[in-house]
Parts: sequence; structure tokens; C-alpha cells
Amino acid sequence: MMSELHINLSESLKSKPASDALGFGKYFSDHMFIMDYSSEDGWHDARIIPYGPISLDPSAMVLHYGQEVFEGMKAYRTPLGEIAMFRPDMNLKRLNNSCERISIPQVDTEFVLEAIAQLVRIDQEWIPDGEENALYIRPFIIATEAALGVRASKQYMLMVILSPVGAYYPEGIHPVSIYVEEQYVRAVRGGTGEAKTSGNYASGIKAQEIAKTKGFSQVLWLDGKQHKYIEEVGSMNVFFKVNGEILTPALTGSILQGVTRDSVITLLREWGYTVVERVISIEELFEASRQGLLEEAFGTGTAAVISPIGSLSWGDKNTEISGGVTGELSQRLYDSITGIQRGKLADPFNWVYTVK
Amino acid sequence: MMSELHINLSESLKSKPASDALGFGKYFSDHMFIMDYSSEDGWHDARIIPYGPISLDPSAMVLHYGQEVFEGMKAYRTPLGEIAMFRPDMNLKRLNNSCERISIPQVDTEFVLEAIAQLVRIDQEWIPDGEENALYIRPFIIATEAALGVRASKQYMLMVILSPVGAYYPEGIHPVSIYVEEQYVRAVRGGTGEAKTSGNYASGIKAQEIAKTKGFSQVLWLDGKQHKYIEEVGSMNVFFKVNGEILTPALTGSILQGVTRDSVITLLREWGYTVVERVISIEELFEASRQGLLEEAFGTGTAAVISPIGSLSWGDKNTEISGGVTGELSQRLYDSITGIQRGKLADPFNWVYTVK
Repeated sequence: MMSELHINLSESLKSKPASDALGFGKYFSDHMFIMDYSSEDGWHDARIIPYGPISLDPSAMVLHYGQEVFEGMKAYRTPLGEIAMFRPDMNLKRLNNSCERISIPQVDTEFVLEAIAQLVRIDQEWIPDGEENALYIRPFIIATEAALGVRASKQYMLMVILSPVGAYYPEGIHPVSIYVEEQYVRAVRGGTGEAKTSGNYASGIKAQEIAKTKGFSQVLWLDGKQHKYIEEVGSMNVFFKVNGEILTPALTGSILQGVTRDSVITLLREWGYTVVERVISIEELFEASRQGLLEEAFGTGTAAVISPIGSLSWGDKNTEISGGVTGELSQRLYDSITGIQRGKLADPFNWVYTVK
Repeated sequence: MMSELHINLSESLKSKPASDALGFGKYFSDHMFIMDYSSEDGWHDARIIPYGPISLDPSAMVLHYGQEVFEGMKAYRTPLGEIAMFRPDMNLKRLNNSCERISIPQVDTEFVLEAIAQLVRIDQEWIPDGEENALYIRPFIIATEAALGVRASKQYMLMVILSPVGAYYPEGIHPVSIYVEEQYVRAVRGGTGEAKTSGNYASGIKAQEIAKTKGFSQVLWLDGKQHKYIEEVGSMNVFFKVNGEILTPALTGSILQGVTRDSVITLLREWGYTVVERVISIEELFEASRQGLLEEAFGTGTAAVISPIGSLSWGDKNTEISGGVTGELSQRLYDSITGIQRGKLADPFNWVYTVK
């Protein structure tokens, strides 16, 4: 199928940002991948072209009814000089799962992965140097039909753009303070919380801003039905080490099925830890903390990999975790996953996809 | 402030569609209104320009994190030849309420209303003839900052586009069959259900498609917490006439504050009906139906105005309403509201805004 991928290289390459001032998602590489969909022709016209603005009709459905899904992954340069990606098959499978929930047509994941590999190969000079840096890969699909009316679009555009990024938190792996959100809700079972779709993120921005003004880094989301059970932290999955055992919210339909989440569970079990996926109430967690049993807490996601939680604030209750420093297990997970991702450690689970 | 509105008229006007084949949201007029926002300059560069594609960076935040709000209203040609709009102040107030929830900066509603009036004036030839037809007005705001990162955008674009439309349902006012949705959820308290934002609509498309394949026109949404209480029907508010009294779900935070909803309540009270805004369980409604007390049911919204519900299907239970024909009260409300909107009936509540 790769014969169907047309390539039109840019005639003028952009200058690259300094690798110590990348930030997150501020710069974009020289090329992008685009593929169109119409109900008549299916997915077609796959092409790599110079990165640049796209043209949309003002009535394009994505701008009104939010039919959109996206993914996020990273590419790294290994010590052998190869280009490595981390479990892209899982991301692309999830892309199709998100499509299913938002009524967007499925994509051929193998073809898209080959197209992404080709794009990364072309723009490989954009993979930044530096321990914490990576080339962030953002595939997304938008509804482009020019019509107002609440229904599934008949036209879509899949795009992949690349951004050289630094650490998601400028300070690197570092415990953050978290505000337990009791009023606003990210998602509810029966909604779209399990899909990686724009509406889930729009709904969280306000709570995040309020938390920031109160001096917190992020919010801990509780379930939408009872505001009792822990779901996610910011836009990450969340784990707790309680009395030696690892707890993480079960995938009940309102929580994103994180690739890093899955990798963390696999590693922890390999290391002999008991990992329990179940409902976890915020009350239970604060009780464990009161008893001195809450040993570590951390978020997991592609952007930050492991983000240790240094404190939790719930109503008038506060609790410090791991003495406010990065816990031993959080650090071990961060080192192990980033080590595997960057080709510096052995890859026993075949997670690394090498761009040939 | 109107002096700040720049106008660049199109040099070639499009041909207009036949007024008996408009459909909904398929055609767009010759011009559009645009205004930009940056955190440095606030809202600026208000302009009416020829309708056409807009240029967005592929990383524009709206395409990833769904920061978007919109509105819908209609303009009509009155028998006196004037141009009438229906309660646009309420729509623009709601636009700002939606902005507040989605962390989008507020707009000057008076200025936007004058800009819309000017746009409608310029494109007034696009107000279609015909009883059921109108010029649909779609204001919307999108986050345009070119950056990946879940936070409020620093740049936005407000646009207003116009579309000559026919009846929302091609058959006009006509009872529709409704499927009570028990699995999927449109919104939950603490989420974004009260805001007119794209994510609420994306989340509903799948349930709507499933209902269609089962032979229903639309879904009735139940609350996200218990799946017991009635919220909306399709993308409309919903009313029931039970034993002479009118019931509609209370505005508890997950329901859109409809302009037509408010107008219907006002008219009904004026006519001497008791209107009760409260939680209504689907069980209670089916019990009322069993007792022969469910006299009428209808959805309300700008697009369809009044959409009578002919039958409800809830699990294995079915109930026909008003003998499957348009109820007397539904018809009276439709005739009254459309009559006021089109300047054919007196306007005792000063709902009509005349474009001078």
C-alpha cells in the first residue's frame, strides 16, 4: 500500500529551535501527512507535503459538532543512531476505538503506521538531542464536510504533525501538587471519556485553570456519578502505591486506556508487584494516607511519562506524599520506561518499533 | 463601535438555491463576519468579508482540544418587508455563558449583535421565501492558537455564517418516533451540558445513529448519573403535557438553556397553563401514559421550533402519544412562535429584533 503514498518535499527547510528551549508543542517540523476520506471513495489521497496551514470551510463540521479524535506518541534517536517509536500499534488501535465512539470511519492502522514512519524518516533531523527531549507525533482526524446539521460527517481528514518537545513539565520529573476536583467532571460512563476526543479536553480546561489560580499544578478527576471515585489526574492515568500494593482505577468506560498505563502495569507485575485495577474512592485514599500507608502516587501519560504527585488537596484536607519528593518506584518506572523508549535498556516486551 | 467594523463586499455573488429545496445548513450566503482575539489585543479586526475557506494551522487548538462554542438563530422577512430576528440578545448572552464554561474570553454582545445585523442586511437577498424557510445564523468561536498542550488558547476567531434553510425535518411539523437512550449519555452535571459547545454534540452522534438504524428519528437523553431522569430530546429541550399540566426538565446544569424553551414557558403561562420545571423520571412518564394522562410531548429548539413526539420507546415498552398526530397544544405553540418570529402575529413580549 505504501505505493499509494505520495511525497512532495518542501523546498525550503525551517531553522530548528535550540534543544534546550523546546517547550511542548510549540514548534512543528517541515512536513506533515494528510489523508482524505469521503463516503464515496473511503480513505484516499495519502500524501506527505510541506507543513503548513490547511483550508477549511467555515461550516466544516469539526468546528461545530466536534467530531474529532487524536493520538499522541513519541519518536527517539537511539544510541545506535536508529529511530525508535514506543508501542505505536497500541496508539493506532486506540485511534480506531476512538473513531468507533465518535462515528468516524476506521483507518488501516498498518498503512497509517507506515506513513508515520515515512514522515518521521523524512523529518528525522527534527528529533531533538537531550535526555528529556523527543519528537512528539500527533495523528488526528477531523470532520470536514461543509454542512450544519448534527450527524456524522461524510468527509474527514486524517493528519499527522510532528513537534520536537522538551519535558512536559519544564522542571522534568518532579512532584506536583494536585487539587481534587469535586464540582467539575471530565467524563461519565456512557459519555466519551474512554475515547481520545477533543470534547473531553475542552471540558477540563476550566477546572484546570481554577486549580492553577489556587496554586496547584493539576486536578484529580472524580467520577461523574458520585464524585467519590478516582478517575484520572489532569490528562493522565493515575497510580497509587498503598502499603506495598499498586492501585489504579479500573477501565470502566470513562477512563482513557493509556499506553503508558498498560506499560507501567506490565513492568510492575514483571517486578513482582501486585497491581490491582479497581474502583478507588478518594476517601479510602485519604484514610490510607492518614494511616501512613500511602507511599507513592503518580500520573502516567505519553507527554510526561511518569509524573509524581507530591501532595493532594481535597476540600479542607491536605496530604503530602513521599515527603514531597519523587518516590523510589516512580523514579524506577520513569528510568525504565524512558530507557526502553530511547533504546538504552533492553526491550523484553518488544515495545519498541524501529523505523527502518 | 460599529465604526470598527470593516466591510469588504464580494465582487461576484453566488446563485441562490431554489426555496423549495433548501434542506438544512447546506448552502451559505455571500458574506461572513469574522473577529479575532489575542491575549494582547483582545477582540479586534472585526470584518465582513466574502464567504470562503479559512486558513488554520494544523495545530490550531480547536482541532485537538475542542475549545469551541456556538449559537444558532434565525432571520425572517416580515409581511411589511422588514427583517426580523428572534430574541438574539438571549442567544448572545448564552454565547458568553458558554464561553465562561469553556474558558473562552467574553464578547461584547451588543457589538456582535450589530455586526450580525449588518451581515444579515448585506445578505438579505438570502432570506428565503416560503412558510417554513428562514435564514439560519450561526455564530461560533474557535481556539486558533498554533500549539499542542491542554490549556486555554491565547488566540480565538469569532465567525458568523448564514445559511438559508427549510424545515429542519423535511416533512415540517410532524410527530417523530423517539428512542429512550439508556446506555449512552449526552452530558452530566459538572460537565459541559449547559454550554453550547461542540463536544456535547460529538458525544451524541453514535446514539443517534443507532436509533436511526432501529427506525427512530431521535433519542431521548436520560441523566448521566442514574439514567432515570429525562434531560433533552436529540439536541432540543423537551416538554410533556400530563393531565393538563406542562412538565419540562429543570435546568440543573446538564441541560441547555433553550431560547425556544423559555419562549414556550412564557407563552404557556400567559395562556393560563401551569408549567412545572422539575426532575421528571422516565418511569413516571410511562406510568402517566399507562393511565392515559400523557396528552402531548414535544421538543423545542431554534432549528425545528416545535417538534411533536409521536411515540416513545423505552426498553421493551412503547407508548404512542396524541394518537401519533400533532397535538393541539404543540400546533398552537408552533403557530404562535413562528407567527411572532415572522412578524405575522403581535409580539407582546418584545421578542422580535428588527434589523434597521
